[in-house]
Amino acid sequence: MEHDLSSAPFPAWPDVAPDLVNVAAGRAPADTVIRGGIWVNVHTREALPDHDIAIKQGRIACVLPDAGAQIGPDTEVIEAKGRYMIPGLCDGHMHIESGMLTPAEFAAAVIPHGTTTMFTDPHEIANVLGLEGVRLMHDEALMQPVNIWTQMPSCAPSAPGMETTGYEISAEDVAEAMAWPGIIGLGEMMNFPGMANADPQMLAEVAATQRAGKTVGGHYASPDLGSDFAAYVAGGPADDHEGTCEADAIARMRQGMRSMIRLGSAWYDVETQITAITQKGLDPRNMILCTDDCHSGTLVNDGHMNRVVRHAISCGCDPLVALQMSTINTATHFGLEREIGSLTPGRRADVILTSDLKALPIEQVIARGKTVSINGELTAECPHLDWPTKARQTVNMGDPKTAADFEIAAPEGRNSVTANVIGVVENQAPTKALKRDMPVSDGKVESHGDTCQIALVERHQATGGVANALVSGFNYEGRMAMASTVAHDSHHMIVVGTDRDQMALAANRLAEVGGGITIFRDDEELALVELPIAGLMSDSPAREVAAKADQMVQAMTQCGCTLNNAYMQHSLLALVVIPELRISDLGLVDVRTFDFIPVLEPTT
Amino acid sequence: MEHDLSSAPFPAWPDVAPDLVNVAAGRAPADTVIRGGIWVNVHTREALPDHDIAIKQGRIACVLPDAGAQIGPDTEVIEAKGRYMIPGLCDGHMHIESGMLTPAEFAAAVIPHGTTTMFTDPHEIANVLGLEGVRLMHDEALMQPVNIWTQMPSCAPSAPGMETTGYEISAEDVAEAMAWPGIIGLGEMMNFPGMANADPQMLAEVAATQRAGKTVGGHYASPDLGSDFAAYVAGGPADDHEGTCEADAIARMRQGMRSMIRLGSAWYDVETQITAITQKGLDPRNMILCTDDCHSGTLVNDGHMNRVVRHAISCGCDPLVALQMSTINTATHFGLEREIGSLTPGRRADVILTSDLKALPIEQVIARGKTVSINGELTAECPHLDWPTKARQTVNMGDPKTAADFEIAAPEGRNSVTANVIGVVENQAPTKALKRDMPVSDGKVESHGDTCQIALVERHQATGGVANALVSGFNYEGRMAMASTVAHDSHHMIVVGTDRDQMALAANRLAEVGGGITIFRDDEELALVELPIAGLMSDSPAREVAAKADQMVQAMTQCGCTLNNAYMQHSLLALVVIPELRISDLGLVDVRTFDFIPVLEPTT
Repeated sequence: MEHDLSSAPFPAWPDVAPDLVNVAAGRAPADTVIRGGIWVNVHTREALPDHDIAIKQGRIACVLPDAGAQIGPDTEVIEAKGRYMIPGLCDGHMHIESGMLTPAEFAAAVIPHGTTTMFTDPHEIANVLGLEGVRLMHDEALMQPVNIWTQMPSCAPSAPGMETTGYEISAEDVAEAMAWPGIIGLGEMMNFPGMANADPQMLAEVAATQRAGKTVGGHYASPDLGSDFAAYVAGGPADDHEGTCEADAIARMRQGMRSMIRLGSAWYDVETQITAITQKGLDPRNMILCTDDCHSGTLVNDGHMNRVVRHAISCGCDPLVALQMSTINTATHFGLEREIGSLTPGRRADVILTSDLKALPIEQVIARGKTVSINGELTAECPHLDWPTKARQTVNMGDPKTAADFEIAAPEGRNSVTANVIGVVENQAPTKALKRDMPVSDGKVESHGDTCQIALVERHQATGGVANALVSGFNYEGRMAMASTVAHDSHHMIVVGTDRDQMALAANRLAEVGGGITIFRDDEELALVELPIAGLMSDSPAREVAAKADQMVQAMTQCGCTLNNAYMQHSLLALVVIPELRISDLGLVDVRTFDFIPVLEPTT
Repeated sequence: MEHDLSSAPFPAWPDVAPDLVNVAAGRAPADTVIRGGIWVNVHTREALPDHDIAIKQGRIACVLPDAGAQIGPDTEVIEAKGRYMIPGLCDGHMHIESGMLTPAEFAAAVIPHGTTTMFTDPHEIANVLGLEGVRLMHDEALMQPVNIWTQMPSCAPSAPGMETTGYEISAEDVAEAMAWPGIIGLGEMMNFPGMANADPQMLAEVAATQRAGKTVGGHYASPDLGSDFAAYVAGGPADDHEGTCEADAIARMRQGMRSMIRLGSAWYDVETQITAITQKGLDPRNMILCTDDCHSGTLVNDGHMNRVVRHAISCGCDPLVALQMSTINTATHFGLEREIGSLTPGRRADVILTSDLKALPIEQVIARGKTVSINGELTAECPHLDWPTKARQTVNMGDPKTAADFEIAAPEGRNSVTANVIGVVENQAPTKALKRDMPVSDGKVESHGDTCQIALVERHQATGGVANALVSGFNYEGRMAMASTVAHDSHHMIVVGTDRDQMALAANRLAEVGGGITIFRDDEELALVELPIAGLMSDSPAREVAAKADQMVQAMTQCGCTLNNAYMQHSLLALVVIPELRISDLGLVDVRTFDFIPVLEPTT
């Protein structure tokens, strides 16, 4: 599990302190000087015209009204020409896998948007490849020209006993990972009922993180701000990004947590919470902007942290405060305020040049003193890890599937049955637990109307297992099937279809390409997104992945599905921690009671 | 160097997390509940009426509108009765030795004033007893019922080559100390010219601290905000408390340092700097209140951090902001924001009850969940270390002194000489380098007018060395001498007198009692402050030490000295880093040039 990290870690401040001192004193030339900009100071919350930034060894040596003394014959001079110099933007919490991109390609996609620091929780790969998968993400992260710190995933499986993951994360794994160079803390503690009940494993993970002096990420996805919330806070999580309303944000900050407010591809929690600052006037130091989950299409078309900062400003937030929320607040939260997050001596020279603090055009991005993007074009290398075969061969479902694997047998002699059906609701993560009468043909339950089949195909241990059930709401028509190895959080394979032959074709196709998303209709593949790394990520550029994902959505539409965010609905149908009905490799789960229930109601 | 620290360190959050969670959830009773107070929330900067605080194992389990569910039959209930509940106050930088008290007695003196956390730099004892002395201070600090973190002294000697200290502090010492449980960082880096010149030892000390993930304290005592300042900042110090004007505070905060502003017994730097917040409107998060140096009299008569907070408020600072500057800002600076500094779950239960946020009467102080003071009376034990003999026998000056040891021989045949004289200036730390014609009698230079003798008596290695010179400005009359083993920073013994017999009496008296301050006139001791610990501190209560110090000042007055803060002037005359002229064990030092100069001008 060791990789070539010869370019990492980045030299520490004390490694280069003599150089920084000598440059600041004017005794030695800088490597780079940014001349004549407006210094956006996130410590004092000021914009100070006519300043220069001198950079040495990738760190800021000094910020002065005139760094002429720091310019030697070999010093690169970047003319700011009166533009704003702002710190590189930090994403306080996010999952790289959500972009279906490797860390390298994710970095390549977001650097032109001004993101120079990310705090990433590789929770998805942890379910597929365990600690080794986390290490691979961690290692590729450290190879990038920007700062990607890793939050050690805390909850794999998400719902112990209700599903089988490829690997599980233990408290010992957490303790081991705390010594890795790029680990910044614990990833979101999603098992909030466990925390509130003092679950020993959850507390052991938190303890390992606290004893290592690192930051415990939170995930409190409940509207209850009473004793459950109090107990959760007492357990140790230091932040939370699951708030959805002003009261949530205020409660978290008052209790000494940092409120992370997110604008992701499908999360819109900034506007409803930032009023705690803009209207209630609370101290803004404890609010942090983040994305949590961004699809590749969002990265290609809309931006990343620049999109979040612009949005916060459009919600009425002072631009300097919004920038604090995406720079120094984040840095302070993770114990990195002397490493990143401001344009001051000793810090990594992560600088954005922009002409306008509100529209925030990202005109030039400098990371660790090197120009990594100009006018939206990447100018740096984002090196790829040599991903091992094991990480590229994660779709192990045993023998090829046939239509027979997807049969749901009806009790003998019945023409119809009453079934428990997963009901998808547009624009909502929770599903409905429905009961539907379903036709039977040749002893097998058949798709009918808006209700079709769903199968959870085991793909980690090659057990050959298939759990079959029924789902409604996609409105698929004709003979089709759609399969995905992105299947939160255990990431087996979810196949949804109206026809068992198509279901087998789709499943076998993903086994063939090593994972991804495919749609078949009438024996023809309409779209394919290949995700060969752990069945979750592509190592192709974001633009290509986004284009294929677009085709996939179009194919879903061709098959009759017009739901908003339909693919997200598909990929969340095995997330057995969100009510009401989900499917796991172990069967149909009623998440309201955490009980398994039969697909077909017993014959009376 | 190991002591009984069985009561320390205080259990960590993860040690007691299950208890905290169970109390917060209402499943287990709290040890203590504070009922019905106004929750002063330094995270959001709010005062929230009608809240309860539940405490378990010395930490806050939850803060709720109603903690009735947390009250069991054995729970202690403290009725706040609508008073404010504020976090215990933190002193961001200070020297315990300045109070002439051991850590235990210092703690006993300041707890009734609401100070529950101190960041202390035992710089003085480091000069006398080296790393072992630092460890003794550190160990007694950890025995106290309040939080005393130790900043490892960085600069002993203060002026290498210009003086001989009892011990020296090396970069290796710093690295070793970083592993001690109570070490929070590096004490003030006073060698600012060294830092600005990239002095390898200074940078090595900073590096050891940064690599340990701890905070580097600064001390930039120069008005120059140009390249010297830039170079100093680039070296790594994270704070500074030597600023004296608004521009100083602003420069430090803009450059990513925290501006510590101090109100000590003789420091008045709050009023001149807090305008950066109150008038310029800068973000206050990077400003911290501290005392630096408080005499025992100040602690007895005026207060400690409560005095500083009240003063900041009287300077126009919002009370909630002033409280942030003495609680959460300080905690965040030292990486302790989840340990102290706010009244939120998991933190040490350090709480003050007060009826008024501006007058700030300290009515009840709770530290780690225990009531330690009520209405100004200490109610807790502040345990004493069993100080070893070595620490109590530090006045080692060899054979008893006689008048002959203090003779300044004049060139043969002269009736008068021209001497280089240290000129004391009232209310200023810098001295003047004067030239005075002095009378000669029996071949010895004699006191005359306002000029008398000064001697630096070696007391660390029993070398028997005495460096003699002349000082003016005290206006002593008659036959007298005053001696002190508090003699910054090398802490030999400074004897000032008009009569060599009295000088010998005074020196020998301090050798007899193990150090302190004494004044003799006409062979009679007018006052004595015994400081048996390292010749710097008393282990008697502050009230007794303050009373003796008062007598000492009265005795100085009796001898004709009416200078303000005359004793401080006396004790600083060997501080060979402040211009213009000082005395060290190696002779008379011109601090403007860092050269030794003769006491008597050469005969022409």
